[in-house]
Amino acid sequence: MEDNFVPFSGIKNDLKGRLMCFKQDWTSGLTAGFRILAPTTYIFFASAIPVISFGEQLERSTDGLITAVQTLASTALCGIMHSIIGGQPLLILGVAEPTVLMYTFMYNFAKDRPELGPKLFLAWTAWVCVWTAILLFLLAVLGACSIINRFTRVAGELFGLLIAMLFTQQAIKGLIDEFRVPERENPNLPEFQPSWRFGNGMFALVLSFGLLLTALRSRKARSWRYGSGWLRGFIADYGVPLMVLIWTAVSYIPGKNVPTGIPRRLFSPNPWSPGAYENWTDMLDVPVLHIIGAFIPATMVAVLYYFDHSVASQLAQQKEFNLRKPSSYHYDLLLLGVMVIICGLLGIPPANGVIPQSPMHTKSLATLKHQLLRNRLVAKARKCMTENGNLAEVYGGMQEAYQQMQSPLFHQEQSSWGLKELKESTIRLASRTGNRNDPIDETMFDVEKEIDDLLPVEVKEQRLSNLLQSTLVGGCVAAMPLLKMIPTSVLWGYFGFMAIESLPGNQFWERILLLFTAPSRRYKVIEEYHAVFIETVPYKTVAFFTIFQSIYLLICFGITWVPIAGVLFPLMIMLLVPVRQYLLPRFFKGAHLQELDAAEYEEAPPLSSCSMTRENEGSFADDGENMDGMMTRSRGEIRRMCSSKVTSCNATPARDSVSIQSPRFSNKVYSPRVSEIKGESPCLGRGGSFGSRTGETRRSNLSKTHSFN
Amino acid sequence: MEDNFVPFSGIKNDLKGRLMCFKQDWTSGLTAGFRILAPTTYIFFASAIPVISFGEQLERSTDGLITAVQTLASTALCGIMHSIIGGQPLLILGVAEPTVLMYTFMYNFAKDRPELGPKLFLAWTAWVCVWTAILLFLLAVLGACSIINRFTRVAGELFGLLIAMLFTQQAIKGLIDEFRVPERENPNLPEFQPSWRFGNGMFALVLSFGLLLTALRSRKARSWRYGSGWLRGFIADYGVPLMVLIWTAVSYIPGKNVPTGIPRRLFSPNPWSPGAYENWTDMLDVPVLHIIGAFIPATMVAVLYYFDHSVASQLAQQKEFNLRKPSSYHYDLLLLGVMVIICGLLGIPPANGVIPQSPMHTKSLATLKHQLLRNRLVAKARKCMTENGNLAEVYGGMQEAYQQMQSPLFHQEQSSWGLKELKESTIRLASRTGNRNDPIDETMFDVEKEIDDLLPVEVKEQRLSNLLQSTLVGGCVAAMPLLKMIPTSVLWGYFGFMAIESLPGNQFWERILLLFTAPSRRYKVIEEYHAVFIETVPYKTVAFFTIFQSIYLLICFGITWVPIAGVLFPLMIMLLVPVRQYLLPRFFKGAHLQELDAAEYEEAPPLSSCSMTRENEGSFADDGENMDGMMTRSRGEIRRMCSSKVTSCNATPARDSVSIQSPRFSNKVYSPRVSEIKGESPCLGRGGSFGSRTGETRRSNLSKTHSFN
Repeated sequence: MEDNFVPFSGIKNDLKGRLMCFKQDWTSGLTAGFRILAPTTYIFFASAIPVISFGEQLERSTDGLITAVQTLASTALCGIMHSIIGGQPLLILGVAEPTVLMYTFMYNFAKDRPELGPKLFLAWTAWVCVWTAILLFLLAVLGACSIINRFTRVAGELFGLLIAMLFTQQAIKGLIDEFRVPERENPNLPEFQPSWRFGNGMFALVLSFGLLLTALRSRKARSWRYGSGWLRGFIADYGVPLMVLIWTAVSYIPGKNVPTGIPRRLFSPNPWSPGAYENWTDMLDVPVLHIIGAFIPATMVAVLYYFDHSVASQLAQQKEFNLRKPSSYHYDLLLLGVMVIICGLLGIPPANGVIPQSPMHTKSLATLKHQLLRNRLVAKARKCMTENGNLAEVYGGMQEAYQQMQSPLFHQEQSSWGLKELKESTIRLASRTGNRNDPIDETMFDVEKEIDDLLPVEVKEQRLSNLLQSTLVGGCVAAMPLLKMIPTSVLWGYFGFMAIESLPGNQFWERILLLFTAPSRRYKVIEEYHAVFIETVPYKTVAFFTIFQSIYLLICFGITWVPIAGVLFPLMIMLLVPVRQYLLPRFFKGAHLQELDAAEYEEAPPLSSCSMTRENEGSFADDGENMDGMMTRSRGEIRRMCSSKVTSCNATPARDSVSIQSPRFSNKVYSPRVSEIKGESPCLGRGGSFGSRTGETRRSNLSKTHSFN
Repeated sequence: MEDNFVPFSGIKNDLKGRLMCFKQDWTSGLTAGFRILAPTTYIFFASAIPVISFGEQLERSTDGLITAVQTLASTALCGIMHSIIGGQPLLILGVAEPTVLMYTFMYNFAKDRPELGPKLFLAWTAWVCVWTAILLFLLAVLGACSIINRFTRVAGELFGLLIAMLFTQQAIKGLIDEFRVPERENPNLPEFQPSWRFGNGMFALVLSFGLLLTALRSRKARSWRYGSGWLRGFIADYGVPLMVLIWTAVSYIPGKNVPTGIPRRLFSPNPWSPGAYENWTDMLDVPVLHIIGAFIPATMVAVLYYFDHSVASQLAQQKEFNLRKPSSYHYDLLLLGVMVIICGLLGIPPANGVIPQSPMHTKSLATLKHQLLRNRLVAKARKCMTENGNLAEVYGGMQEAYQQMQSPLFHQEQSSWGLKELKESTIRLASRTGNRNDPIDETMFDVEKEIDDLLPVEVKEQRLSNLLQSTLVGGCVAAMPLLKMIPTSVLWGYFGFMAIESLPGNQFWERILLLFTAPSRRYKVIEEYHAVFIETVPYKTVAFFTIFQSIYLLICFGITWVPIAGVLFPLMIMLLVPVRQYLLPRFFKGAHLQELDAAEYEEAPPLSSCSMTRENEGSFADDGENMDGMMTRSRGEIRRMCSSKVTSCNATPARDSVSIQSPRFSNKVYSPRVSEIKGESPCLGRGGSFGSRTGETRRSNLSKTHSFN
């Protein structure tokens, strides 16, 4: 595809595709009503807490020049801009760990130079930002994002796992520090005496593990058996912020019995105090030599941002999510350049696309969409059943409801596909369940489960949640005095939570687990993740490939420990492109590599048909029992659902001349039920679709059909 | 049955029944080989840890007259006696909370009387023991245990839950005390300064919750996906003691940075120190008036022991366990009398049957038996499959293997029943899975699961595990210096663990949970517990009954808080007999009451045919994957298994004249698969049997067949 390359074509295509959906991006968000607050608050916390923590880290390493106020301001500013005029609104922006490392490196360089020093540091970084922006513009215009499809699953997932490791490392470091006297503090204070430090550390363990365990559990609340449906839904949606609140409240229980410094809480300057914004100096004071020299760190930052931004965007648009709206890599990179300049001029560190928040965002929107669809269909099915409808009538009613929610604005055949598939499985199911004409009731027919089986994964693609969460991050600057009540230990627990939440769905991680799985239980991995490679690639090859990847990961992780060269770690991941293209094929069969590294992240062409979904469902209806934890549990389960039915957006010929084959729109029709294969023995291997985590006998003889358009 | 009552007949029948199995009790235990160590260590810890803790409690309340050494010695002595010459070897003996309360009350009475005082306290309690023993003899001879069948499920489960509450209370109290200065300690020691106390308390939280969570998790290790089967089996069997070891090791991590008193550890006198056994005085020094007066506390103790001992025995012999050997209530009560005298003369508090250890013991032996049967059958099935056998051949092989392990010594028809049932389900399954003559392999046929479905619950009934665990408890006296390394906080975590482990399988508890279950998820309770009452009794009745029972439980719990009258709480449970018989029928329909209070604990007659199982399976074979967590998870699941097939010991006419109908040997044939009822729609509602905790659509239209003999 590099052959028929035309400058600006990438940006043009991106803009074309996204503009078509732009209005729908807003209306769709608004029709979701109050429910949009669930993914919003979820992502807001996932975004704000690390940004605050990185701000604290920067404050220490830049002698207070940059604080949490600046990182929050940058995250809010870039986030709001991106959510309104950005390309892919699923992408979440924030000041990330690599930026922190980069700024630390630059500060260490600048502070000892008399011609720069701390005074001119921010002005100098402004020049770095300018150069970075220019490089990003170039990359965007020249269509560099086209090679992002060379960053196959292997690279993206390795990077995702690396970020999870960095988060975990931060959590462990933070917890250990709770036992120590913090730097720059007076060690003679009562709370830093050995006895109180011991108590503080132990309290930190209680608070962080308390938060981690309860937060992980609350995400699964929908599948709890106890409590009303409303309560369970509320806990699942808002459990994580709720737990932060609860554990912050718990941290106040010891009260007057302990010194005020126990437990340690977030430290941050009051943004309203005088001098908070007085660190800005004139860019023209920077010596010319350093203005030119700023080009050197700028190349690093540009490479970093190019990679980080694109991979975060890729991970937020994984094939499993069945996205309908087009991607926008080139245009988003261009916009990132603009934001980098703005941030540089304001003297705040720039924000870029972040992992794991971006995929978390998509995941939470998939949950939202699933609930909306499910509520509607369950209500319809129940209504049919109370009217003594037979199975065919019930399904007919559900088809109708599904059709109502899918009516496309542009192409009729687009979404009628999902419908067709629904109809087919209806008939299949109806014939299997015997007499179609008897009225059925819920004792014989589990509506919720059937609908869960039927519904494809769809994502509520809109801009509202991103805008709202960015605005809330901005509000954090004002709410700083409140945020300072959160104990740092709760923060470390939250870091652990984020690391764990990012793991399921990462096939690399699943393969690592496979290495530790008892041979007789390996088949369960197939059941759970529908990981095709397990059936098509020999186990030894999978193991060898995974071990290679793990060693590579450990090398990348090791490099981040190297004092200054550490910022080069993205180069290691860049290096994966030639490694994947030239080195790996020498050791592995092409077919095996293709399975293990299914290039699902390849860039999708701007789809001329953008299936608009008009959802007129009531907002915040009493979803009660209708919701289920399936979507919230893990991406692994989303994947399972996804792969168990035809992706509903099939194959409309792309109008554009871009010749990229879009694997996102290729269907792999899996039939997860062995009963369909075995004919007379439909009972062997039929299992419920949830709860099968601990295993059922469902063996999936996967039959694959690739239909490229 | 009280009509044709003959003194001594109960004891005679008990002895007759148990003597028949006596030799087999030993051979069966020995053939299990190393595996017997799993239930042994499990019960040893469950028995020793509370006894040590109660010893500490007694030491405080008797000013050091009775210590953990005495309680351990009593538990070991009585346990060894009972395991060798006792009736029901499933019953675990130990010094229990009620005994502690009773002795506290007696000491408070005695210490202020100049004619008794601390010096004559033990001699006086010896008289109490003598009177108690006389009363117990009388109760045993007069066949009082026959009325134990009036203590229906309601009473037994209420008592079980009360004990669980007392354990939980002790755990919470203990944790709170970790933040306080202990009584009788010098508050000026460094570890009792506020700062160190805070640290100690927080450390205690970490240690106790660490133990609780890891111990609960380790019990489920067999169903883990990771690690080799051997490792998983080892963790499941020995996880709890392992966790005590691990968390004790963790407690040493702070090392020299904290005062030696942190964390607090078990306190107990060195049994080898001089004076440890010098608290014994002459019984004849006690004034005659007090010898006679000792009759008053003796009646209370006798009532308490009569109830506690019998209910513990009942709970260890629940119908769900499908026991084959007869019960022995009368004879065991007689023997308890003997042991009470011996303990009294030795100046140690007597031991009696304990809850929840006794049912825990049976449960762990059911797991053991299940593993032994399963290994054999899986090995056989795998062998058949490698020889390209078809389904019928595989089942044929398994039948043969099962038969080998069941060969009875006395009655052929007894165990051929289990076989017949196995055969029937074989045929049913074979015809359902289609072509019977094709060779099958493991990809289409999940051997382990099928065998799990087929195997009935059976218990490895033998005396060895009880003898070994009692001996180990005795060894604790010698190992006291080592035991003192265990932190008290680990102990509190262990108390919580014991309380939680005793809950599943308690139908009262399950009904309480049902009150909090969302209406739409109630059917899942049926799936999980096969609780018949949910289908036959209206929900409102269930709710009302459960609320009544809960209030009654809270009253009982409240009474234990009353300073001295607290020891009367067993009378409250005694009172349940008239309440159940005369009060409840006024509010509830008889049929409903029967379902809710299925009198499964009624006394079983001594069974003349004692099916001996000759198991010649290799000891500690590589069970690997063959094991599964099914049996270890909870009693609820055991129950599920049990109710899903015919109890294999069916209905042989009892030779004796005792006219009690034995419900233990009545069969309830549930068919848990709706497919068998629905005919053409075998797929709706077929789910795996494990992993269904979070729900599948298996609806069980239970068909019941009562076959009393």
